[in-house]
Amino acid sequence: MRLATVRRGGTTTAVRIEGGTAVVLDAVDTRAVLAAPDLARGGGEEIDAADLDFAPLVLNPARVVCAGLNYKAHLEELGVKTPKYPTLFSEFASSLIGARDDLVVPSITEQLDWEVELTLVIGTWVFRAGLTEAEAAIGGYTVGNDVTMRDWQLRTPQWLAGKAADGTTPVGPVLVTPDEVDGARSLEVRCEVDGEVVQIANTSDMLFGAAALVAYTSQFTALEPGDLLMTGTPAGVGHVSGRHLQVGEVMRTSIEGLGECVNLAVAEKA
Amino acid sequence: MRLATVRRGGTTTAVRIEGGTAVVLDAVDTRAVLAAPDLARGGGEEIDAADLDFAPLVLNPARVVCAGLNYKAHLEELGVKTPKYPTLFSEFASSLIGARDDLVVPSITEQLDWEVELTLVIGTWVFRAGLTEAEAAIGGYTVGNDVTMRDWQLRTPQWLAGKAADGTTPVGPVLVTPDEVDGARSLEVRCEVDGEVVQIANTSDMLFGAAALVAYTSQFTALEPGDLLMTGTPAGVGHVSGRHLQVGEVMRTSIEGLGECVNLAVAEKA
Repeated sequence: MRLATVRRGGTTTAVRIEGGTAVVLDAVDTRAVLAAPDLARGGGEEIDAADLDFAPLVLNPARVVCAGLNYKAHLEELGVKTPKYPTLFSEFASSLIGARDDLVVPSITEQLDWEVELTLVIGTWVFRAGLTEAEAAIGGYTVGNDVTMRDWQLRTPQWLAGKAADGTTPVGPVLVTPDEVDGARSLEVRCEVDGEVVQIANTSDMLFGAAALVAYTSQFTALEPGDLLMTGTPAGVGHVSGRHLQVGEVMRTSIEGLGECVNLAVAEKA
Repeated sequence: MRLATVRRGGTTTAVRIEGGTAVVLDAVDTRAVLAAPDLARGGGEEIDAADLDFAPLVLNPARVVCAGLNYKAHLEELGVKTPKYPTLFSEFASSLIGARDDLVVPSITEQLDWEVELTLVIGTWVFRAGLTEAEAAIGGYTVGNDVTMRDWQLRTPQWLAGKAADGTTPVGPVLVTPDEVDGARSLEVRCEVDGEVVQIANTSDMLFGAAALVAYTSQFTALEPGDLLMTGTPAGVGHVSGRHLQVGEVMRTSIEGLGECVNLAVAEKA
């Protein structure tokens, strides 16, 4: 099953996407559907899936948890030793934008950088889970890009200031249930900037898989429907090459079987 | 003015405290009052301030921003150089507990540590503020303790896992408006464990003051009423002495003019 959150008539609604058709559900976003799964089977108005205006996949998640240092080749490019535990930080709901939204480049940075990330959405409440329970708590997968102000990130030991800028994290376009993508164990992840492939990897190269990250996070905080967990980015970040995202460039973030986010970098209005 | 969020009749309400009396306001918590300041002047039922059951001062803040490495003597005890920028990370709303609540020691940690912190509550929306505007956006000050699972914090470069455990951050009991405490520029902060003073310092020793932290944070995210900003802890953390908080101990966190949190450490139920 594929769900999305779309803007429509001045508000938002969840939709279930079936081929070229989107069926309007009685829910404000995918989180509301995950919290009350019967809603997913509802059938309201049908609209053309080509016309959808994607909002952030979850409007106001209670948690946006992000993993860092989670692809072997990315650790190598950064010169970091293989960690024993997942490196976790968090962002705010205000960081999120929709899958086709313009990415407004904050005027305060000169080093905006891309980070394609397999992103999962929690489907059911989960606390102190083992791997099996953690896997079962995953409601679906989507595409994310944890766009980072690298200059702000690296000013201090903690990354928040570079990670949590408002409106810099595309998430979507759709939530795909785990059964459709074999638990996202082996999917190609890719980021292109103006058509040039800057990141390409496979989720099978993740150090900690999706279920392991959920299990670990759930040791200290009870996760709930709609929580987002971004699973870390592979090699190829601009920080290493010295190239950064510029106004006017198109960032295309795609994951095999999950779709793509296409975001035009635009200048911040004064 | 002094405001609090209290539990009452199965729900919560904001109150305005005047001496020994608490006046019930038409708002679910202090955040709702900050978002609609006229509510602060309302006058409902009056109850005895001695009987209040304090909830977390803000029930569900959009942001819990925390500063680290912000007292000179704490930097010295950790052997860290004076930073040029504030070190910021964030927690979840689920970390918060009330000023008199039991502190449930997570069974997963053997190194639970105290961190008294002057905590401010944002009163008005603020983005890309200078110091003057940032100061004006502070709705009030309160007492916080960013209790930390030190073993989990230091497993990886990012601190979230040790900081954001559910129910480990007392915040309260009251919001005190800046006029009552001269903008919290020079207040004694103190943490006692079973009557022994483990931390004592003055907010005048902060490297980045409250307004500077708000101004810096507002560069990358627009802060809104009810957002919490914990301003960092002074020297005296248990991590340095090797002493940690034990089940059965009482942690008393106090700040001059703002009141105190008194939290009994209890074992987690199986």
